Amino acid sequence: MDLMIPIDSQSKKPMYEQIYAYICEEIRTGSLTAGERLPSTRALAGHLKISRSTTQMAYDQLLAEGYVETRPYRGVFVAKMEGMVGAGPRIREEMETSEPEPAVDCRIDFSPRGIDLDSFPYNTWRKLSRNTLVDDNKEMFHSGSHQGEPGLREAIRGYLHSARGVECGAEQIIVGAGSEYLLMLLSQVLRAKYAGSGLRIAMENPTYRQAYLVLRSLGHPVCPIGMDAFGMRPDLLVQSRANVAYVMPSHQFPTGAVMSVGRRQELLNWASACEDRYLIEDDYDSEFRYRGKPIPALQGMDRQGRVIYLGTFSKCIAPAIRVSYMVLPPELLKVYRAKTGFYASTVSRIDQNILYQFLAQGHFERHLNRMRAIYKAKHDALLAVIRPLEGRFVIHGENAGIHILLTGRCGQAEADLVRQALAVGVRVYGLSGYFIDPVCEGKETVLSPAVPLPDAEEMGVMPDEAGIRPATIVLGYASLSEAQIREGAGLLVQCWCPQQGIIG
Amino acid sequence: MDLMIPIDSQSKKPMYEQIYAYICEEIRTGSLTAGERLPSTRALAGHLKISRSTTQMAYDQLLAEGYVETRPYRGVFVAKMEGMVGAGPRIREEMETSEPEPAVDCRIDFSPRGIDLDSFPYNTWRKLSRNTLVDDNKEMFHSGSHQGEPGLREAIRGYLHSARGVECGAEQIIVGAGSEYLLMLLSQVLRAKYAGSGLRIAMENPTYRQAYLVLRSLGHPVCPIGMDAFGMRPDLLVQSRANVAYVMPSHQFPTGAVMSVGRRQELLNWASACEDRYLIEDDYDSEFRYRGKPIPALQGMDRQGRVIYLGTFSKCIAPAIRVSYMVLPPELLKVYRAKTGFYASTVSRIDQNILYQFLAQGHFERHLNRMRAIYKAKHDALLAVIRPLEGRFVIHGENAGIHILLTGRCGQAEADLVRQALAVGVRVYGLSGYFIDPVCEGKETVLSPAVPLPDAEEMGVMPDEAGIRPATIVLGYASLSEAQIREGAGLLVQCWCPQQGIIG
Repeated sequence: MDLMIPIDSQSKKPMYEQIYAYICEEIRTGSLTAGERLPSTRALAGHLKISRSTTQMAYDQLLAEGYVETRPYRGVFVAKMEGMVGAGPRIREEMETSEPEPAVDCRIDFSPRGIDLDSFPYNTWRKLSRNTLVDDNKEMFHSGSHQGEPGLREAIRGYLHSARGVECGAEQIIVGAGSEYLLMLLSQVLRAKYAGSGLRIAMENPTYRQAYLVLRSLGHPVCPIGMDAFGMRPDLLVQSRANVAYVMPSHQFPTGAVMSVGRRQELLNWASACEDRYLIEDDYDSEFRYRGKPIPALQGMDRQGRVIYLGTFSKCIAPAIRVSYMVLPPELLKVYRAKTGFYASTVSRIDQNILYQFLAQGHFERHLNRMRAIYKAKHDALLAVIRPLEGRFVIHGENAGIHILLTGRCGQAEADLVRQALAVGVRVYGLSGYFIDPVCEGKETVLSPAVPLPDAEEMGVMPDEAGIRPATIVLGYASLSEAQIREGAGLLVQCWCPQQGIIG
Repeated sequence: MDLMIPIDSQSKKPMYEQIYAYICEEIRTGSLTAGERLPSTRALAGHLKISRSTTQMAYDQLLAEGYVETRPYRGVFVAKMEGMVGAGPRIREEMETSEPEPAVDCRIDFSPRGIDLDSFPYNTWRKLSRNTLVDDNKEMFHSGSHQGEPGLREAIRGYLHSARGVECGAEQIIVGAGSEYLLMLLSQVLRAKYAGSGLRIAMENPTYRQAYLVLRSLGHPVCPIGMDAFGMRPDLLVQSRANVAYVMPSHQFPTGAVMSVGRRQELLNWASACEDRYLIEDDYDSEFRYRGKPIPALQGMDRQGRVIYLGTFSKCIAPAIRVSYMVLPPELLKVYRAKTGFYASTVSRIDQNILYQFLAQGHFERHLNRMRAIYKAKHDALLAVIRPLEGRFVIHGENAGIHILLTGRCGQAEADLVRQALAVGVRVYGLSGYFIDPVCEGKETVLSPAVPLPDAEEMGVMPDEAGIRPATIVLGYASLSEAQIREGAGLLVQCWCPQQGIIG
């Protein structure tokens, strides 16, 4: 099938958005119907004489919003939908905000990316800010240490040691303006280490798309690796010929899975089996855990210096606090110093000093304890209201983090679930949007094979109607109030499980 | 000649520092003598079984500190020195600070990287910071616009338009945590634009080493292009087959040269002659100019959308204010949005808001006016004291910026001048440290050919004793007080030109 998409290269709207908008419109008006196969990204790109990555981005967006779905080894198909909702989701004119703006009629947004800022200790932060900008502190305006202020790094080391079991010296810590920046820096360290060739990065599939986009944009081949109930599968990792694996052992995003200790050891063994293999441990939200004791970081189990540890204050303090940190093993620290040590810190000394005081004076620990209680209450409110859904969904990923997952037991279609929720004013997110496609440079893209969810088979989950992976919905609750959570969850029960809604 | 350098791969000291330290010691103890040829970086790397870039870094450091000198097409030779000073310059154990720490006996440091912070409006900044962190401003802690806060971008647009003649909309501006970060981001935009191949970046030679290191670390081939009295030579630019040229037209670093309008037009013509050619205009310190009217930015002359404009607040406000900005032409803005628009801003909204108020309330303009007067006074003090050197040096680059240059008329050796100054407690910087070597991937490095300084021939400058480019010393004066400048400059006159010192 050919799509005759008129592309206006003079338009202010990016080409991928034009393609996205055209296909949306075709689906909305019925010119493209459910089950129809779309051309491959390669064929469409060739046809329109534009780059493959542009068509890929358009398809990614369509997939994320549930207009289309992928079927393994067969292609991309128009999704089934139960009647269109209003004029459909808004097309983003601007790529300015990190969140897609909620549609006009969406009252409650279960975005897995929000966090609760109502409880942020504004007064404390203001006070610390004033303390930093006192008269005799003028050196704050001079440039500082490239890796980050020594005091802040020591405070981070202390926290990581006691709370996460991370074993490192402050000299191994690099402070940077956000995890994306640190990935850019790490990319250059690894590029130097691998002398520009042979670096292949494995990621769990599905995964944190933002990290995937960064690594892809930096030009690294990324291999998506399927997971089982214990985490990333070592057999697939070996097959992929990747030499660096990016994992989230404490609480995988988005599946919420916790990597078993046995699997952690397997991955460490994999890393130690060859020279120049590394694990990137992204410990993005390990601070929040509601059942059992905290799970120590993988880094603490590593005796061979094979783990690169990434953490951030954006999730547990505030997104505007653009401070993340990276712990490099000794071998990579040497490369960092020799090859990229010339980079000045991207975080102002003033901000580093405020954060240092926040940690050193115990405010951070108090804030975490407060937030743990707040998120636990929201989490409990959500679980209480959605209990009636248990007949039709498996609820999982609920022991940690700030989102949970619902996996359909009855062959529901993910796109239907998203649409039905939107029809009652609730935005939810399909897991499909977090799957990544293999990047085989120069080769045809193979669409993601169906990846079993953790425990999917044990839980008796049915594949969805299209014969692929079961429909799974991600519900983030951090930025909603308990009242909003109760209202939104109630609406979901009503629209996804009407009888149960009445009974429950 | 083989150097038997014992490398300890377990040492905390990076390998390049071990090589650097070993060769320093050999020179200091007389095992290597002036005029002796060192092995090429490639030969030494092969001999020691380490990477070429490690030996290159060691040699760069030796060159920057004047231990060795390069002779075009012949190699690297031990520099002549008039007796060693004390134990020689300190070897940096840490790469933590951006400036090499001054040696114990160095009282006055004419670093071209310092700026004056004594006049920073601390009280204003504190006040603005308090205003930003008021109670009803909690959204400051949420994540903001990816390109930077719209208000700040509009304020930057207004400033660039009125002060620099830059023509752009606020939507073309991207705010980031420092110019190095923005170069990383730009690298990904260009990588996408050039589809991963064929991108070659030309830079003026000598140039701003930090930008060179960033581009090299990102894996881009960099072609050094010689300059004449008007700026980067277009004939050499064409020969280099580069498609992107990084230039500093308003005030080239480190030569202080101002690119002529004719040359600007030639470069714009070069860029327009083929598709996908761009100019990166780094306008890092255009705020300070002491004679004649301000020179508008190259960007304002551009009618074809071929100029990428870079500016920073680190130089004109404070290094700790990690805010730089980039203006993308429309074509690259599209690529940015499609390929890298997912990156969240690296500057906290709080800091962006403080800076926004600083600009919008007129504090920035007042600060610039004050700093212009302060730097002018320092500049005049320096020129007044070094006047007696005019018989032996050409003084140039004095109309703008915060450093000047002295080029020897009598065949002085640069390394001698640096050592002589250090012997009387004054640190100065040789221009040699700013030259960059061609990076021809996979080919043998060709050492920089002698590059004429602007006006060198007209000025009657003699080549130095080794038959290469004339000795040139860079004197930065921004971070010194007027008294320190007078003392330091007086000492330089005494040690470089003793008779004149007495007469003058």
